[in-house]
Amino acid sequence: MQAMPIDREKFPPLYRTVANNDDGLESRSYVPGGLDVKTSTPLSAAPGANPEQFVGLALSTCLNATLEAIEKRRDLPHTSQVHTIVEMARDRRGFQFYVTAEIRLPGVDRQTAEAMVTLAESRCPVAKLLGGSENVVVKLVDDFTPVEPVAKA
Amino acid sequence: MQAMPIDREKFPPLYRTVANNDDGLESRSYVPGGLDVKTSTPLSAAPGANPEQFVGLALSTCLNATLEAIEKRRDLPHTSQVHTIVEMARDRRGFQFYVTAEIRLPGVDRQTAEAMVTLAESRCPVAKLLGGSENVVVKLVDDFTPVEPVAKA
Repeated sequence: MQAMPIDREKFPPLYRTVANNDDGLESRSYVPGGLDVKTSTPLSAAPGANPEQFVGLALSTCLNATLEAIEKRRDLPHTSQVHTIVEMARDRRGFQFYVTAEIRLPGVDRQTAEAMVTLAESRCPVAKLLGGSENVVVKLVDDFTPVEPVAKA
Repeated sequence: MQAMPIDREKFPPLYRTVANNDDGLESRSYVPGGLDVKTSTPLSAAPGANPEQFVGLALSTCLNATLEAIEKRRDLPHTSQVHTIVEMARDRRGFQFYVTAEIRLPGVDRQTAEAMVTLAESRCPVAKLLGGSENVVVKLVDDFTPVEPVAKA
């Protein structure tokens, strides 16, 4: 993460925002003038969002926006849905997330849907940011996996 | 993004959540039973969050939570703050984000602060997910960069 972003001159920013956390995990995270969210550790019952949820929101929104654009370009009805499961686990150092984005494309046949998922993954900026990680999976599903909390030991 | 997450058996999930987008960029993204956020394209003036903001919220919250834990372990006062600037630009295919996380650690000397930033980057799960991307920079700052919207052409 040392190198400066490449191609900034060729591809100048079209949009810029900032998101802040000033007090840690049990506080709030906010976009000045925009979204302002109470945060808490995922390992307590206290209400609040957490980094896991923000990662899931980022990938689901980005992938579905990209799929929507692909549907439009192909004159297909907009049927895509994205649910991203994020799990947190210990790691050799610190913690790690397992990220699984599930995509439903009920409006098209399997082969077309697979091609659209591959294309979306190559175009969506959030998928690109996460693309170097082995912990991230993007896949087409017929039905979303029911998501249950991890059982307490 | 094909391989399944590694080490899942050695490091079983401690927490699991899901974040959904069912309708595209001009709709809402939500965690069932939790955060529910109106979304809109960053290139319009319409109110709403977007993937750029979710990425920033994820990285700022995660890095500051990690820094807070490092401060606690070293018996230091909690002074860390993280502001993450996210910019969107065109790319060879689709779009890309430039992500710059700025960290303030006013409570400690420069050398200690640099070491803490390096440690946080190696431990924070969101920084790990993004660590393979050249578009991501994490850096220590004395003062946060003022963030202005991109001027319209």
